[in-house]
Amino acid sequence: MSKGLLIVLSGPSGVGKGTVCSALRPRIPELIYSVSATTRSPREGERDGVNYFFKTREEFLHMIEADELLEYAEYVGNYYGTPRDFVERTLESGKDIILEIEVQGALKVKEKFPEGIFVFLLPPSMDELKDRIRGRGTEHDDIINHRMTVAEDEISLMRHYDYAVVNDEIDLACKRIESIIIAEHCKIR
Amino acid sequence: MSKGLLIVLSGPSGVGKGTVCSALRPRIPELIYSVSATTRSPREGERDGVNYFFKTREEFLHMIEADELLEYAEYVGNYYGTPRDFVERTLESGKDIILEIEVQGALKVKEKFPEGIFVFLLPPSMDELKDRIRGRGTEHDDIINHRMTVAEDEISLMRHYDYAVVNDEIDLACKRIESIIIAEHCKIR
Repeated sequence: MSKGLLIVLSGPSGVGKGTVCSALRPRIPELIYSVSATTRSPREGERDGVNYFFKTREEFLHMIEADELLEYAEYVGNYYGTPRDFVERTLESGKDIILEIEVQGALKVKEKFPEGIFVFLLPPSMDELKDRIRGRGTEHDDIINHRMTVAEDEISLMRHYDYAVVNDEIDLACKRIESIIIAEHCKIR
Repeated sequence: MSKGLLIVLSGPSGVGKGTVCSALRPRIPELIYSVSATTRSPREGERDGVNYFFKTREEFLHMIEADELLEYAEYVGNYYGTPRDFVERTLESGKDIILEIEVQGALKVKEKFPEGIFVFLLPPSMDELKDRIRGRGTEHDDIINHRMTVAEDEISLMRHYDYAVVNDEIDLACKRIESIIIAEHCKIR
């Protein structure tokens, strides 16, 4: 049996990574979704090993030290990371696994999994991205402008990726990602 | 405007290249099909520039000399070849073009168009290929065995290709090729 593929879906925040990932579930039911580890407390209804692997700060720091995370980051006082073990076991079982992750994290994953398929999700235009970032809340212009600068920096890292998928329509973006997965399975290595 | 993609569909004889190519037409109406040049006479209903570019032997030999063919071969006393000009004009216009071609010819095309997408069509099994070759006529066993040896030699050349597509079901094979084309358009080069 051949190993599964690691698909890393990334892109600037506001581009719609989460929405695209959710829309992929019914289209590719056999695709496994990576489960992140976090030190934040479970919210109501969240289950350990399903939504997240819930860890104490000590456990998380131990995972970092033991190189058990493909990447991790701190966000609003909590750690979030991708457990290597879950990814590797899925791939060994011959199943494909998808990781939805920020741009910097994806590049860290690439250092450890250069054979992964790195997909960069693009907004149809920078204006459209600005609209989407603005649409999220009632943020001030300087916050929105700061986020746009971050997004531009992230897009400049696209050259490290294998594929660029424009998220113009959710259905089209999903079809492109599905096509990339099918094509990669046909690739002669 | 970006250039189109050259897709080269090849594989051993009997694998179903022609059938798959025909089935792709309604699925990808925007895909252009390469038109071969030949020295054989037009059959009833065949039109110059549609089914073939019909050439005299002298014209064909001139095309060979002037390097106007991406590949050519002689078959039962007639020449067949792929005019470079038609392929290049199509690519320049931003359209994708597909070439259905024998394994040796495809490798010659690769020398001149290394940026092409080379797809190798595989039978589900060698037994299945033997059945298909046998099913074509009432050939003797030694002819069938010879064709199988040729097919095995051709399959050993698969490593020079980019993708392998199993022709188990025509619909699945078409979906894989369609996916390869979509994915290649998303590729970051």
